[in-house]
Formats: sequence, C-alpha cells, structure tokens
Amino acid sequence: MIQRIAILGTGLIGASTGLALRAHGFDGTIAGWDPDRQQLHTALSRGAITVIADDPEMAAAESDLILLAGPVFTILECLDRLAPILRTGQLVTDVGSVKGAICHHARDKYNGPGQPGFLPGHPMAGKEVGGAENADAHLFEGAVWIFTPCRSSVAAEDSPAAEAWRGWVSKFGARIMDMDADRHDLLCAWISHLPQFVSTALSALLEDEFAVNADLLPIGGRALREMTRLGASPYSMWRDIAHTNTDAIARSLHALEQRLAHIRENLKTPELREEFDRANRFRVHNPQS
Amino acid sequence: MIQRIAILGTGLIGASTGLALRAHGFDGTIAGWDPDRQQLHTALSRGAITVIADDPEMAAAESDLILLAGPVFTILECLDRLAPILRTGQLVTDVGSVKGAICHHARDKYNGPGQPGFLPGHPMAGKEVGGAENADAHLFEGAVWIFTPCRSSVAAEDSPAAEAWRGWVSKFGARIMDMDADRHDLLCAWISHLPQFVSTALSALLEDEFAVNADLLPIGGRALREMTRLGASPYSMWRDIAHTNTDAIARSLHALEQRLAHIRENLKTPELREEFDRANRFRVHNPQS
Repeated sequence: MIQRIAILGTGLIGASTGLALRAHGFDGTIAGWDPDRQQLHTALSRGAITVIADDPEMAAAESDLILLAGPVFTILECLDRLAPILRTGQLVTDVGSVKGAICHHARDKYNGPGQPGFLPGHPMAGKEVGGAENADAHLFEGAVWIFTPCRSSVAAEDSPAAEAWRGWVSKFGARIMDMDADRHDLLCAWISHLPQFVSTALSALLEDEFAVNADLLPIGGRALREMTRLGASPYSMWRDIAHTNTDAIARSLHALEQRLAHIRENLKTPELREEFDRANRFRVHNPQS
Repeated sequence: MIQRIAILGTGLIGASTGLALRAHGFDGTIAGWDPDRQQLHTALSRGAITVIADDPEMAAAESDLILLAGPVFTILECLDRLAPILRTGQLVTDVGSVKGAICHHARDKYNGPGQPGFLPGHPMAGKEVGGAENADAHLFEGAVWIFTPCRSSVAAEDSPAAEAWRGWVSKFGARIMDMDADRHDLLCAWISHLPQFVSTALSALLEDEFAVNADLLPIGGRALREMTRLGASPYSMWRDIAHTNTDAIARSLHALEQRLAHIRENLKTPELREEFDRANRFRVHNPQS
C-alpha cells in the first residue's frame, strides 16, 4: 500500500520514524529532506532514510506517504506548499505538537474531492535532546500516538493509505488514540506543555541563582536532574507550541502559579497535608513505569 | 573506633545506612529502633540492623555512634532526650534535611566539656518511596553527604569517632562536603525543597484536573512521570522541612511563581527565547549523569 515515503524534517522524530519503519520491515524508498544538511547526512548514514531528496516538493509528489516532522510553523508552511502538487490517494501526516492550528490550516486544502488526504498525528514521545544523532527505532514503543482526524466529508482519513499508516504506527509498538484536535491541545497543555515550561522556569531560575556556583548543583542529585531535564529542550520547537496553543498553556501556567502560592502561604498549616495527599493520589493514578 | 552503633529510625535512610555499613565491612553491633514495629522487623530481616533495641535510650547509651534518622522534629526530640544520658566520647550524628534548626537545638547540650559529640549530617540521596523495604546499600554511591559542624569550642566534632564516621561515609561511595548550617538550608531550599514542592504542586493540580480521567495520564509519557515522581513523597517528612526552613522555601517558591508568570506573559515574545537559553545553559552546568 505504502511503497514510497517522504520524510520532510529528519530531526529526532522524523529520523526515529524512519528507523522504526525499517526496523519493522519497511523495504520501500524513504526520501528524506531537512533544511539542515548535517541532519540529513546523519539520517542517511544511520539508515533512517534511504535517499536524500534534492527537492522536497518533488520527493513529496512521488511518494505515497508524506511525513511532516518539523516544528509546527514549518508544518503549516509545508501544508501550503504541498497541497497544489499532491493528488487524491496520497496521504500527508505529521507529528506536530499542536493540532488545532494544523487541522484548521489544512481544512480547505486536504481531504476534499480531488485533494490529497491528511491525517494529523502526534506521537507522545521525545527526548530533551534533538537531532538525527539521537534518533531511536524504539522511541515509540509503549508511547501513545494520537491522531486527530479532521472529519472532512470525504473522509480521506479513512483511506487505504491512512489505514496502512495506522498499521505501521501499531508495529512501532505505539498505542493509537484518536481524539478531537481541540481536546488534544487542551490535554497537552496540562500534561506536556505545562511540565515543559515548569522545567524551563525552574532551570532558568537556578541558572540565575547558581551560574557562578555550578559546582553546588550536583548536590541536588537525581531529583534535581529529573526536574530540570526538560530544561535542555530547544526553543525552536517550543516557540511554535507557545504561539499556537497560547491560551491553554497560559491557563495551565496561571493555575500552577496559584497552586505554588497556596503552598507557600500554607507551609505551616494543615493545608499542606491536603496538597501532599492530592499529589500522592495522583501518583497512584499515574504510577512510575 | 566504632564498635557499636544505634540507628534510631529505620526507614529508608536509616536502613540504607545500616545496609551500607554492613556491605562495607562493619562487623559490630547495629541496634535499631523505630516507632513503627513493621519498619524495625523489615530492617532486621534485611540485615540493616543486627538487633532490635527494646529501649532506644538504653541502646544509645551503650553505643559509640548514634545515628538519628527520623524526620526533623523527631531528631530534635531525640537530641533532647539523649543529651543527659550520653557522655563525652560518644558521637551523635543525624541525617535531617534541615540543619539550622538542628544545630541551634543542639548547641548547649552537645560538643561542650563533658558533653557528647554531635556532628550534624545530611546525605543528599533518597527515593520518593520510603521505608526499610526500599532501603539500598548503594543509595549513597556518588551522592554528596553534607556535614554542618556546629563549631563548638571543644570541637568534639573532630573527635576520633567523628573521623571514623567520616571514614565510613566515604566508604559508602559518598562525597563529603562541609558547610555552614545556614548555607546548607539556603542551598537546599533551591535545589532540593523547591523541586519537591513544585512536583507536589504539579501533581496536586493534575489530580484535580484529571482524577476522573486518569486513563489520559499515561499519554504524558516519561516527561510527565519524571516531573511528578516526587509527588509521591510523604507529608510526614516534608511537614518538618516546611516548618523548619520556611522562609527560604517561601522565597524560592515566590521566585518561581514570578518566573512562571513571566513566561506566561511572554509566550509570544522573544523573551521566551531568553528563558529557554537560560534553561539550556543550566543544563550545560548540571548535565544528566
């Protein structure tokens, strides 16, 4: 069903997808393209792609499946550029972290009569370090891979190509979950974007406090390392998320600010026990894997 | 030098210390006591102690080294109860998470002429789960073990027993660091207590948001798990820390609230890049081990 794939964006997620495809038996062509030539060569040498595309649009035009694996704004640009040159039967999918803006952007150009298909996706997997050099064929094992079908009248999202792509994602070991794009963005604001911005804030604060005493930081041990691991995440990716899911992120940040203030004002009252009890219950719901 | 040890409090840290002692060749008696009989029996069956003390004060009176391994307020109580029954040459040490209150409390009763020695300590190691059942002989390997000598005129802290205890801590694989008690408390407010209260706040917030939709939480993956792992920490321990290091913790929480508000107000401005850059630099200073 899918013989030829174009991966536009061969960073961590794009290259990991290529590695996962090949690890699970995909033996067709994977044409790769990335604005960063180094990423592209790393992806090729690691076997995440089988050929470097000279022209991303031509590579897309010749492919059954086109995977858009850049930051959100790059995905929006690609959707615009590819729509006129793709045809019915071809499927575009993506791995963008915010789905409402992407679905909205694709609405009139995809999934209609005579238009290419588009099945928006978001693998809930990643690392705090990016790049093809950190790509991993097993990155998606045990992770949830969300799809947010755009519900067009033609339902190109239920096409044979879409079914085939869902089949590959299952082979990667990911658990597929379908949900509405807006619900995805609200959910991710709480469980993905908020943890990221908290870790960034904590890391930036400690940088200001301890930059000249960095030798003190190892004292914090595992707890500090874990709470600041995401501090290494790249601005380039998170800028787009902050721009396209702004309201939901702002609400979650404001809620946490209020929560921290509540704890601060109750360090010596029994209310602190309530907060620890709630946190303990959360961990029962969401146990360490 | 140290033939007989009393461990008062055989939870995670106390029992791990007992296991570490025996793993590194201590062949004397380790008498254990804990208000929780179950902890005590677990510690004995795991070999963290060699005998259960019927009476903690009698066990202390007969020991060369007395390790106080309970929450901070319990340590303060023990210091009061033990001072009249111990003698010069015996050494008390502790593993309490806040050192200013403990040092202040011990000042007139220890390290003076005719008084027992007291060397306050704090191993920067732990788990989000407590109890002797989670004790680990290797818990302190690679961790920093802070001592905050009280600087009495008699310097009982430099006694042969204190030197011997430092020797054991080194054998555990911990890196010893001496610092002033107040500096310890300020430092720990930032790198230990703040991360804990942030994780508690985030976990409690998500519990309120998602308690009835707990099936959504695994979507968050590793990042969410790490950021909320400390949410499982017990109130019983953190209540005492919140009570005895209140001002420093409140200041660090307030600083983080302001930082989160700053990020929230700049989700669409270039200032967000500055915050990510600062956070990225922090990670360079404090790399993942």
